[in-house]
Amino acid sequence: VPELRKDPITSRWVIIAANRAARPNEFLAAPPRRVAKVCPFCRGQENQTPAAVATYPGIRSGRSAADWQVRVVPNLFPALTSDRRFVLEQNGLFETGPDVGIHEVIIESPHHLVSMCDQCDEEVALVLGVYRDRLIAASGRPNVVHAIVFKNVGVAAGASLEHTHSQLLALPVVPATVAEEECGAQQYYQQHDRCIYCDLIEQEQRAESRVVGRSAHFVALCPFASRFAMETWILPAEHSSHFEQTRDAQLVELAQMVRQCLLRLQVALAGVAYNFVIHSAPFDTAALGHYHWHIEILPRIANAAGFEWGTGFHINSIPPEQAARTLRTVDLSCFIPTGEDVSTRKTS
Amino acid sequence: VPELRKDPITSRWVIIAANRAARPNEFLAAPPRRVAKVCPFCRGQENQTPAAVATYPGIRSGRSAADWQVRVVPNLFPALTSDRRFVLEQNGLFETGPDVGIHEVIIESPHHLVSMCDQCDEEVALVLGVYRDRLIAASGRPNVVHAIVFKNVGVAAGASLEHTHSQLLALPVVPATVAEEECGAQQYYQQHDRCIYCDLIEQEQRAESRVVGRSAHFVALCPFASRFAMETWILPAEHSSHFEQTRDAQLVELAQMVRQCLLRLQVALAGVAYNFVIHSAPFDTAALGHYHWHIEILPRIANAAGFEWGTGFHINSIPPEQAARTLRTVDLSCFIPTGEDVSTRKTS
Repeated sequence: VPELRKDPITSRWVIIAANRAARPNEFLAAPPRRVAKVCPFCRGQENQTPAAVATYPGIRSGRSAADWQVRVVPNLFPALTSDRRFVLEQNGLFETGPDVGIHEVIIESPHHLVSMCDQCDEEVALVLGVYRDRLIAASGRPNVVHAIVFKNVGVAAGASLEHTHSQLLALPVVPATVAEEECGAQQYYQQHDRCIYCDLIEQEQRAESRVVGRSAHFVALCPFASRFAMETWILPAEHSSHFEQTRDAQLVELAQMVRQCLLRLQVALAGVAYNFVIHSAPFDTAALGHYHWHIEILPRIANAAGFEWGTGFHINSIPPEQAARTLRTVDLSCFIPTGEDVSTRKTS
Repeated sequence: VPELRKDPITSRWVIIAANRAARPNEFLAAPPRRVAKVCPFCRGQENQTPAAVATYPGIRSGRSAADWQVRVVPNLFPALTSDRRFVLEQNGLFETGPDVGIHEVIIESPHHLVSMCDQCDEEVALVLGVYRDRLIAASGRPNVVHAIVFKNVGVAAGASLEHTHSQLLALPVVPATVAEEECGAQQYYQQHDRCIYCDLIEQEQRAESRVVGRSAHFVALCPFASRFAMETWILPAEHSSHFEQTRDAQLVELAQMVRQCLLRLQVALAGVAYNFVIHSAPFDTAALGHYHWHIEILPRIANAAGFEWGTGFHINSIPPEQAARTLRTVDLSCFIPTGEDVSTRKTS
């Protein structure tokens, strides 16, 4: 059974999950390659995963319920699973917390596609809507206070299965990165009575040099202090603290922005591995004036080394101004979403 | 010219170093392999690196000065270089600091060895003594307040050259990881009037389950909240805040502990990549009662993925008790340091 452990010096959390040592890894052999054995996420292999907690039919008409487009299943090797009360046990200097959380897999297509880039805007919008649904469902569950939605694409980004999928991990504590963002943003709010992300968007739009794209309600930019080369953030232009408050009408627009950013990245750096993370405010808060949800796309070109793990500093050899210029100037005209019926696509 | 940038929300630092995009990488092609072209760190290739800032003769007698055993050179692609005053420039929300720091490479052998495991205790002790010398030299330089000594072994650990080497990076600010450790340790010191690391060593020695090894003056253990599978720390058993205060008499004993820990890891996980990091107190402090220097050996089996980068949490699928048991039970009798003359070894 997994457990949470707190470092007695730094208070950082670690999930000790011996059960995860057994999980399959398509990528164990280098170089990364598509593996011949059956993919548990493909249509027809539904019995290879735990029973679905939610299933979404295709976006075209005339589909049967079995003819799913997106499928949400519990992770077969969950990092965290129970909904017990999160009570810490103390043993001298050491504190251990019970296995409390939710670990779901969102299978984004019945077909063996490897990236959101392979889908049309409406398909990606459906996936984003599923993120929203699952965040809302998790927020109603006892003893979890935050959930992170993330995606690993490519072996260098930590992916263990190739078929396009994301994960939701709900936690009994607010994770350090979100807590740090919230803490910094709250300080700014107290001083200026404004959201620092809103001010940042305004400054970046005036400067232009780090802007990758802009639509009616969303902005994509390479952040000023990018940790990763070609790092890209997508933020709602209007203030919003919780991703799950995104309205239906904006999902397709957001999908278009996400897909375009991923395509720009793929063209600039063919086959690049990346992580995709949604940072949203903790569940147990009403709409926050100081926090602003955002998506972080973190390309994994260089491997974090001793310096990064030892200091928490990052070294980035592509200035974000150069990264944004490269990404902005990618010609997307050859990638017009086809909207073709996915059923005509090759399955694995 | 590199520059330091501070994230306006989280205050985390990033070094933007476009100059480093050009550095060579023996490992660009997967799988990792030994590259045929000339290694700039091997004896006879001294003109491939900047001029040495320090050179150490071999530990056996009768060597000429050119017959170096350890060589310290400025990094050809430094992350930071100057000794200017560290004054931040503000532009709206964004703060930029000048390129201030020192980036040195410690070439640990004239021979193309790939790991400290390939050397005898006395050779490793010489390298540890060089770390001490370079930390003392850096601490006397203006405008830097801390230096990290680290080593990347294997491509999965971010190594770009295979020849056994370490790096020293001196910084104009105390890095986040050391600041967090110091902050947590200081809180504990204020409450208990004791060093938390000293108490941790005591508790771990009583529990035994996470102890990997013990000598007169050093302890090796798998930390309670290990972030990485098989993570190992080496700490001085007696309180000491600064690595550079280590006495000559203890260097060989420490070298033996380091080498044994690395050998145990190599036997348990053949060919594993790892980072090796020395955490020591900032330069500008006298001996600190609350901080305790230590070495962290961070095996890189699993790749940090979206969850880790997105939350700051780590998932570790090997409990440290199991890791310590595995490492402890490695039979080292077949690895008795030979003390052979290194000049008889194969060069690349």
